[in-house]
Amino acid sequence: MTKDSYLVGLIGSGIGPSLSPALHEREADRQGLRYLYRLIDIDELGVGPEAVGDLVRAARDLGFDGLNITHPCKQLVIPHLDALAPQAEALGAVNTVVFEDGRAIGHNTDVTGFAASFARGLPDVPLDRVVQLGAGGAGAAVAHATLTLGAGCVTVVDALPERAAALADSLTGHFGAGRAAAATPDRLSGLLAHADGVVHATPTGMAAHPGLPFPAELLHPGLWVAEVVYRPLETELLLTARDLGCATLDGGGMAVFQAVDAFRLFTGREPDSTRMLAEFTELAGAVPAPK
Amino acid sequence: MTKDSYLVGLIGSGIGPSLSPALHEREADRQGLRYLYRLIDIDELGVGPEAVGDLVRAARDLGFDGLNITHPCKQLVIPHLDALAPQAEALGAVNTVVFEDGRAIGHNTDVTGFAASFARGLPDVPLDRVVQLGAGGAGAAVAHATLTLGAGCVTVVDALPERAAALADSLTGHFGAGRAAAATPDRLSGLLAHADGVVHATPTGMAAHPGLPFPAELLHPGLWVAEVVYRPLETELLLTARDLGCATLDGGGMAVFQAVDAFRLFTGREPDSTRMLAEFTELAGAVPAPK
Repeated sequence: MTKDSYLVGLIGSGIGPSLSPALHEREADRQGLRYLYRLIDIDELGVGPEAVGDLVRAARDLGFDGLNITHPCKQLVIPHLDALAPQAEALGAVNTVVFEDGRAIGHNTDVTGFAASFARGLPDVPLDRVVQLGAGGAGAAVAHATLTLGAGCVTVVDALPERAAALADSLTGHFGAGRAAAATPDRLSGLLAHADGVVHATPTGMAAHPGLPFPAELLHPGLWVAEVVYRPLETELLLTARDLGCATLDGGGMAVFQAVDAFRLFTGREPDSTRMLAEFTELAGAVPAPK
Repeated sequence: MTKDSYLVGLIGSGIGPSLSPALHEREADRQGLRYLYRLIDIDELGVGPEAVGDLVRAARDLGFDGLNITHPCKQLVIPHLDALAPQAEALGAVNTVVFEDGRAIGHNTDVTGFAASFARGLPDVPLDRVVQLGAGGAGAAVAHATLTLGAGCVTVVDALPERAAALADSLTGHFGAGRAAAATPDRLSGLLAHADGVVHATPTGMAAHPGLPFPAELLHPGLWVAEVVYRPLETELLLTARDLGCATLDGGGMAVFQAVDAFRLFTGREPDSTRMLAEFTELAGAVPAPK
């Protein structure tokens, strides 16, 4: 009678500049789907992050097919869900909720999205010794992804030593002893000298946090460099690394593939990831970066 | 960046067979709008009609642009709104809520919809003496519409005398003494003999209530006959009246024009009512009537 329709949204704080609505809706348009992606900003609603449970229930009742969840609700949403997919369960964070027959199922497409982006952008790089900067939410997701891809050992470096240690502990709990370690930033020089690659998962390089996350002289041509920051797509770290001859991966791939995986979960249809990457590049260039 | 988008819904009981989603979405498609119309059925949610307040607030928070409201929530919703349009205020019933800058404004497009349908379908009929069968929710709306169109006096007939009297009282309160009266069904013969037209606003003639609302011999060629039932479009009353040579108006016009007016309120754009009437006729013929 009327074409397949999907109603989804994003719950989080300060999400006005999100590219997700355009990214999802444009792909849906090309597939001939009726698809609407709404931003549900807790700041604009004047509620705290703990309101995520009520918002998820309301979305289910009002006919949403699913939700993306972002900062600061990715952990807080978990007690309000009926089941978790393995990646979300292992990580303890959910960025995608799918409503199925009234049940809310939590997924994490940050993990699968980074893995897909990495496999596509750096398909043949060595993974024995990986150094990761940043042990926050994004750091936890990409460390899970890197280890799932077969990394030998991920050494997590964070300005907060206890946060790095907690993530390393959690990773060894899930992936086995010896697969993760924690280190303080003062050890970075020695770690990078002997590493295969580095994953950058701190905010440094974003418009509000310009600059390099560590001194340029610690880079060397034998390192691959994977970036999580995607606004701008070309961070100072990536430019510097590419000048040196490093293989690099920008943060756009993770941003796109988490949307690719969410779109697939919401609709059961396969999105065209190459087309979505091209759309993303166009959108990221056309829209001012968030401050 | 992305085309104008509208998220709306219908709150009510047993609304699964509603044609509103298709009617609104098809018109929006022709206008190139992203438009999604969701059914929010309180029976399926397992909540009572008093939940309408929470549902309206949730819809506002989750980015809905507006809602239609139907049985049994048209009165119950009123205390949860921030303002009422004059038709809704006069009638004491709301079938359309528009969210404007976080405020919920109640409208009644059953009144304006019946008026528009009547003006289009029976433009030149005399309106001095109108008899109306049915003093329920639909009856109240169409009586307001008929009097707004200039009817001299509407005599309301209902199997429940106190309901007819209450509606007549309310109508004279709004439109002035002498504009409305109440009568019991046993007086119908005399009333119809001297009336210009009859408005039928009871469920008789629907699939679940087949038959005529009064004996066929009470009809005569000097009467116009306006029907509120629209499933089926051709009720036994309309067929009988047309055979006699009466001017008639089917219930489809009210169903379409309430949607036309709601679409205009939701989007600020003028729908093509002729196109929507054609769509409605196609949809009403293609979809099984509700039991």
